[in-house]
Amino acid sequence: MVEEALERTLPTETALPGPLHRAMRYSLFAGGKRLRPILVMASTEAVGGDPHAVLSTACAVELIHTYSLIHDDLPSMDDSATRRGRPTCHVAFGEALAVLAGDALHALAFELLARNAQTAGETRALQVVEDVAAGIGTQGMVGGQVLDLLGEGRESLARLGRWPPSPREGVYMIHRWKTAALIRACVRAGAILAGAQPLQLRALTVYGEHLGLAFQIIDDVLDEAGESAALGKDARADAARFKLTFAAAFGIDESRSIAGIETEQAIAAIDGWGPPAASLVDLARVLLVRES
Amino acid sequence: MVEEALERTLPTETALPGPLHRAMRYSLFAGGKRLRPILVMASTEAVGGDPHAVLSTACAVELIHTYSLIHDDLPSMDDSATRRGRPTCHVAFGEALAVLAGDALHALAFELLARNAQTAGETRALQVVEDVAAGIGTQGMVGGQVLDLLGEGRESLARLGRWPPSPREGVYMIHRWKTAALIRACVRAGAILAGAQPLQLRALTVYGEHLGLAFQIIDDVLDEAGESAALGKDARADAARFKLTFAAAFGIDESRSIAGIETEQAIAAIDGWGPPAASLVDLARVLLVRES
Repeated sequence: MVEEALERTLPTETALPGPLHRAMRYSLFAGGKRLRPILVMASTEAVGGDPHAVLSTACAVELIHTYSLIHDDLPSMDDSATRRGRPTCHVAFGEALAVLAGDALHALAFELLARNAQTAGETRALQVVEDVAAGIGTQGMVGGQVLDLLGEGRESLARLGRWPPSPREGVYMIHRWKTAALIRACVRAGAILAGAQPLQLRALTVYGEHLGLAFQIIDDVLDEAGESAALGKDARADAARFKLTFAAAFGIDESRSIAGIETEQAIAAIDGWGPPAASLVDLARVLLVRES
Repeated sequence: MVEEALERTLPTETALPGPLHRAMRYSLFAGGKRLRPILVMASTEAVGGDPHAVLSTACAVELIHTYSLIHDDLPSMDDSATRRGRPTCHVAFGEALAVLAGDALHALAFELLARNAQTAGETRALQVVEDVAAGIGTQGMVGGQVLDLLGEGRESLARLGRWPPSPREGVYMIHRWKTAALIRACVRAGAILAGAQPLQLRALTVYGEHLGLAFQIIDDVLDEAGESAALGKDARADAARFKLTFAAAFGIDESRSIAGIETEQAIAAIDGWGPPAASLVDLARVLLVRES
């Protein structure tokens, strides 16, 4: 459902400017897990809403996620040449188009979020615009990427300020901002659009926060211990860049154990919600034991 | 009024992540003309609205404009070292932070657009979110930047498609998308938020389109004929990069004459609106004869 909606939403490669649309589509249709759209829809379901009615928001968060991957992969950032088994966007299309493809996906996402008013109503759609924008801002996704770079201890950034106080404290903050903030915003968006009660929204916020952290911890573990072929990107890339990861700060075993605890806390937040929340519970369990 | 509101809106340099906030503020408070916020407010005034009530949208469009300048200046794009008499963002803070400062300003802009619902109502605020997002997307600002790069005839992009059909046709399209689309969206935003009638909105859309084109044509002329000191950036930078500009396609004299005609068409669109629209009329005249 999400794939089809994304296909309908993205401008065609024949429309001007073709190279831009090609770069956007190249990165968007590269076989992503679509975790964030699924979270939006599962969260809607959990509070008794209709997942079809939140489809444009589900697409929007995937556009945002894709934009962030394109920019993170740039030579000046993580300098990644491979993603999902293929050359990264800037390798395939050049840096200029990669920056702009990210920017265009970012803008298109907000167009879609606004359009969700048609099915979810204006009040809720606006609340989601504000919530998502905050989740990907300076104390969310983008801020987390900055902390991530600062955590590498790059010389070029060192003069701008010393951070973090300690690796263990630092890595929690990086992951909460860089990954969990958007995942939490996805879960909240689904709930808000379906008219969740305040207590439900609070519980799902807790779920999203813990799930997002668990998800990124497992990502760190897979990067450290996984196989490049299964990951579709270079394994041990984090270690090569001296990135501040859970694997580096806590070791693999303790990281897995922390991820397990975070997963249980996510599930506990929606304990007793029964069948409507089954997808969210299953998702949390599956993500913990994934291998890529 | 806009300066103060921007100051209140931007996160402080002491808040984490400090380097990101510093980079955002560095580029935002670099002495810009604030043309786009002024257009939002003047347009509101033109249809009888209260400019104070659209202040957060006025700030939002300046954040968007600033983000686009930061990204356009990057080495992979226009590779500009100076802007407004100072080192560009990536020169001062490094490329990674420049990309992310742009991304953060982009996200913060949509947070502000959503917040404008408090004074302008939800229906109108949402319409502006959608309108602005479209204006800065693949057939607006970002698409225009892509056409701009394609127009340079870069080897690295040549394999992706040949464009434009002719320089004169090409440069109109670049400027309409790259510059006029956002300027038009600013004028429309002010009108929409103040509850403009459909005929008023249509007239202001025409005004914005012509004004935006005139503005960029004069920019081209100043780049070709102006002094670096007055411009605060390197004069003749466009020619050095073989950019498709009005100066290159039509020559300076014909470009000035086209800009004059576009300005008159902008003013004609709001002919007879009287004192409320005086700011818009004056702005169009002043921008035509500016020297930087």
